[in-house]
Amino acid sequence: MALEKYIRNIIDFPKKGIVFKDITPLLGSSKATSECLQLLLQSLDHQKIDKVVGVESRGFFFATLLAQQLNAGFIPVRKPKKLPFDTISASYELEYGFDSLEIHTDAIQPGDKVLIHDDVLATGGTAKAVCELVEQLGGEIVQVNFLMELSFLNGREKIKEYPFFAAITY
Amino acid sequence: MALEKYIRNIIDFPKKGIVFKDITPLLGSSKATSECLQLLLQSLDHQKIDKVVGVESRGFFFATLLAQQLNAGFIPVRKPKKLPFDTISASYELEYGFDSLEIHTDAIQPGDKVLIHDDVLATGGTAKAVCELVEQLGGEIVQVNFLMELSFLNGREKIKEYPFFAAITY
Repeated sequence: MALEKYIRNIIDFPKKGIVFKDITPLLGSSKATSECLQLLLQSLDHQKIDKVVGVESRGFFFATLLAQQLNAGFIPVRKPKKLPFDTISASYELEYGFDSLEIHTDAIQPGDKVLIHDDVLATGGTAKAVCELVEQLGGEIVQVNFLMELSFLNGREKIKEYPFFAAITY
Repeated sequence: MALEKYIRNIIDFPKKGIVFKDITPLLGSSKATSECLQLLLQSLDHQKIDKVVGVESRGFFFATLLAQQLNAGFIPVRKPKKLPFDTISASYELEYGFDSLEIHTDAIQPGDKVLIHDDVLATGGTAKAVCELVEQLGGEIVQVNFLMELSFLNGREKIKEYPFFAAITY
């Protein structure tokens, strides 16, 4: 199955000059979703995973599926003030200024084998911040994976110390 | 398994006087998540489902799992300006003012059997707005389900014309 045909290009979203990769056609197809899930699972080659970290909010879709398939806990990383319990945060650079992400302090135990998932790897700033959060809590990052890599943005450079996988590469 | 023990009360979140039901301990346990998923599936009694609609963003967690288990497409309903393609929107009342939710116009085909899922049924305003969106696109609502019902807020009254299920009732 050519998964790319389930990704829709949206011109000038969220702002002029950006071609947004819309994954809703893929999510709307249970077969395409299942195939994508299998690709992500195969890339792990049966490594043990204790926790799957999903990044708000499009990272949640496949992170919950991965966690159930791996018999692992699902851990959300969210924008500031969304998580209700004690948190730590990490900042990352935007085009103009900074943003940050939070994780619950009790989400990961030291030594936990952690899979990090997000929908898109772009510049890598978000992914790097999530890696920092996981390591700050003592988690061991087994892999950082994505539905899509926008390879022309070279985000993989920012997370080159971690095993990497993307189901689709542009 | 007593699923309630995986729900954490957070006092005064997001603001003073509110006791927030934190589902992250449940999501962090693959067994509790699996048991909750089974309860939700059993309530459907093998009815055919074409699309599972999940409400941003805590509704996404179980809606994606339900969709895969049911071999159904997953459809996100999101806050304004988050969905990139053509949308329709529905408003609902907040304590002060209004908010709205959007769905892609191509997300549901007329006659689709639709399951709507969110994490919490509180006053029912959100759920009612999502039902309106689904019906506006011609979907047939098979059930509206939730992880939790806060029954003292009487939200079920707002969606009483639809089959209903909640895995946990407070």
